[in-house]
Amino acid sequence: MSRPERSAGIAGTAELMRGMGAAARSAARELAVASAATRNAALSAAATAVRGSVAAILEANATDLGTARGKGAPNAFLDRLALDAGRIEAIALSLESIARLEDPVGAVLARWQRPNGLVIERVRVPLGVVGIVYESRPNVTADAGALCLKSGNASILRGGSESRHSSRAIHSCLVDGLRAARLPESAVQLVPTTDREAVGLMLKGLDGAIDVIVPRGGKSLVARVQEEARVPVLAHLEGICHTYVDRDADLEMAREIVLNAKLRRTGVCGATETLLVDRAAPGRVLPDLIRALIDAGCAVRGDEAAQQADPRVTPATEEDWSTEYLDAIISVKVVEGVDGAIDHIARYGSQHTDAIVTASAAAAERFLERVDSAIVLHNASTQFADGGEFGFGAEIGIATGKLHARGPVGVEQLTSFKYAVRGAGQVRPA
Amino acid sequence: MSRPERSAGIAGTAELMRGMGAAARSAARELAVASAATRNAALSAAATAVRGSVAAILEANATDLGTARGKGAPNAFLDRLALDAGRIEAIALSLESIARLEDPVGAVLARWQRPNGLVIERVRVPLGVVGIVYESRPNVTADAGALCLKSGNASILRGGSESRHSSRAIHSCLVDGLRAARLPESAVQLVPTTDREAVGLMLKGLDGAIDVIVPRGGKSLVARVQEEARVPVLAHLEGICHTYVDRDADLEMAREIVLNAKLRRTGVCGATETLLVDRAAPGRVLPDLIRALIDAGCAVRGDEAAQQADPRVTPATEEDWSTEYLDAIISVKVVEGVDGAIDHIARYGSQHTDAIVTASAAAAERFLERVDSAIVLHNASTQFADGGEFGFGAEIGIATGKLHARGPVGVEQLTSFKYAVRGAGQVRPA
Repeated sequence: MSRPERSAGIAGTAELMRGMGAAARSAARELAVASAATRNAALSAAATAVRGSVAAILEANATDLGTARGKGAPNAFLDRLALDAGRIEAIALSLESIARLEDPVGAVLARWQRPNGLVIERVRVPLGVVGIVYESRPNVTADAGALCLKSGNASILRGGSESRHSSRAIHSCLVDGLRAARLPESAVQLVPTTDREAVGLMLKGLDGAIDVIVPRGGKSLVARVQEEARVPVLAHLEGICHTYVDRDADLEMAREIVLNAKLRRTGVCGATETLLVDRAAPGRVLPDLIRALIDAGCAVRGDEAAQQADPRVTPATEEDWSTEYLDAIISVKVVEGVDGAIDHIARYGSQHTDAIVTASAAAAERFLERVDSAIVLHNASTQFADGGEFGFGAEIGIATGKLHARGPVGVEQLTSFKYAVRGAGQVRPA
Repeated sequence: MSRPERSAGIAGTAELMRGMGAAARSAARELAVASAATRNAALSAAATAVRGSVAAILEANATDLGTARGKGAPNAFLDRLALDAGRIEAIALSLESIARLEDPVGAVLARWQRPNGLVIERVRVPLGVVGIVYESRPNVTADAGALCLKSGNASILRGGSESRHSSRAIHSCLVDGLRAARLPESAVQLVPTTDREAVGLMLKGLDGAIDVIVPRGGKSLVARVQEEARVPVLAHLEGICHTYVDRDADLEMAREIVLNAKLRRTGVCGATETLLVDRAAPGRVLPDLIRALIDAGCAVRGDEAAQQADPRVTPATEEDWSTEYLDAIISVKVVEGVDGAIDHIARYGSQHTDAIVTASAAAAERFLERVDSAIVLHNASTQFADGGEFGFGAEIGIATGKLHARGPVGVEQLTSFKYAVRGAGQVRPA
């Protein structure tokens, strides 16, 4: 990689970032009117560039890995950072699959005629400029840049300093793709400095150049972004997801769902962190579910009833009910029916994803209506909280805010709309 | 009005506001599952209460007017503040017409089945708690509270101190309506203190109790809200709206649209502030439009070409292109065709509402596609920028942000959605 890192000391980080903002805003105007074919061609060409740059990407990644090892980074961190031929091919395949998604831009979402003859259309348009702040996974550079490009948005990417050589190598393939499709290179920009002030400036919006910020990473990153951002943020701080097993649950189904919801992957935001069990469930339900979890290698922290059901359950503290373990640990509580579950989730949940297991349609509908979360499920695993599983093709994250995008954020959720009104000389009466 | 103003000195404004936030959050949970019939019954009962309280409302209003006159408030201010029997009846009628709007809550916006059998529904739900910060118009108390109630949201209303007695009298009718429908009284709360700190606390979200803030008032209020708010804001700072008259415009149509767009009401956000005229338009177009404006009582500030077209045109400064006059003043500029208009609007506009007048379909489509504003019109007046004119029934304001609600904010735009997923025991494969 011969591209020099720009020196923030000379240009000044503020000036550098302001320039990137202006360039992104200008690129966004071009992208907004570029055809879907052109945007898709850039994505396909970027995939080709990735396949032609495997050696360069691996070399850059080796540099990042060497530095991280020298600092004694833990193995889990090194694994997130490491690329190999398979992971690089996965990046190229992901670019191609994003290119194949249905085009979200320009769709007429609604159309109606007013009594005065005006025809009003609500038309989907790109958001403009998306700022992405992420951590060590280098593939986010490709995925996030590509999802923004697909939805007609310019993007400003700020990756973690640990993966900066890898990100730069991947970003240069995206730029190759833009150039091949004759789109402005500043449609996908990578912040070239690791100065932390750059993130602060992005969160302030770069003089109105950034329309929305999407953080991708751990809780401390998201918390900083939500605390400091002066532009809208699409994110979730944490996924404290619940599975509630009702008195009318099929025990076999409940066991399968609970094990999957907790243990399929413990590190994802849709993993269940708390199991709620109806006090009126048959006596064997609680011990059976606890035994299945412990047998599968999960530590169980529970209230008194859970402790009585199995001596291996350790006491849960008040803090456990609002803890996102992201690990093979679960908290278990007995509640007074579906309303008890709804109350517990309202108090301790994070409005992300919550599930009920029951054969009772009435209990299910009550839960689906009253639990105020982005995703509520009946008789299914909370691990379905994922844009791919929803059929969105790919997601840039999951949002728990109530405004704009709630739940998985795919290319459609990276768009806004405008009203196009067509008349024949209408003026508004006094 | 015998209800005492609560003393912020005793309770402490922070404690008072925190209590209002918690009460609103609790009311929001009840409202979210209240039937449309119940919410509408509260609105109708509130209208009845308004009609039964004309004397009390007028008395409260007289107190406010007396104070304002004593402080030497200008006539325009007094007019906004003043109520009479007709204006009070208009408030009651507005409550009834909001009750008659189609119910926005619970609608299934989309429904699809995944290959694994999961059925996913996107269901419209209320936002939760809406904070409204407004100025001297007492009718906003009724309109804003009613629009929130209709959309299933709890509201916290903070009116201007000048109208506080009037607002309190109207608010007490809304509470009568809630009580009649057996809904929680804290579903519509009026901040009882005029302490300015209360607004600051609302803008910080009252410990997560407020989901969105809607400011209603002048530019300085909106600017303060946008600057300080830590929760999402639905608003527009200003409406620097343009009407562009193209070379292919019908002159008669252009004249009617320009006069209406500028002068029907000069104080509304959809009023045109800048007229752009195509340099290639026939020679009589520019002088004719300027003459029509001046004849109608409008002051014209123009670039050189406009000054040459009519000696009564005064020179426009750079500042004029980004000034929202809200008065019978217009700036006029000659531009190089539709692309010149698009560039001018991109540079100086406020992404609110912009119109093109032309008989050329190609020019119109280019303008509608490339002008990045919430509302773009072809051959119609910018004064159609209004929720009522869009068929939304009533609006709480107009938003120029790209996220969530763009354009008129009616009851539908005061909602969010959630995903309800129904399965039969599905778990996610590894």
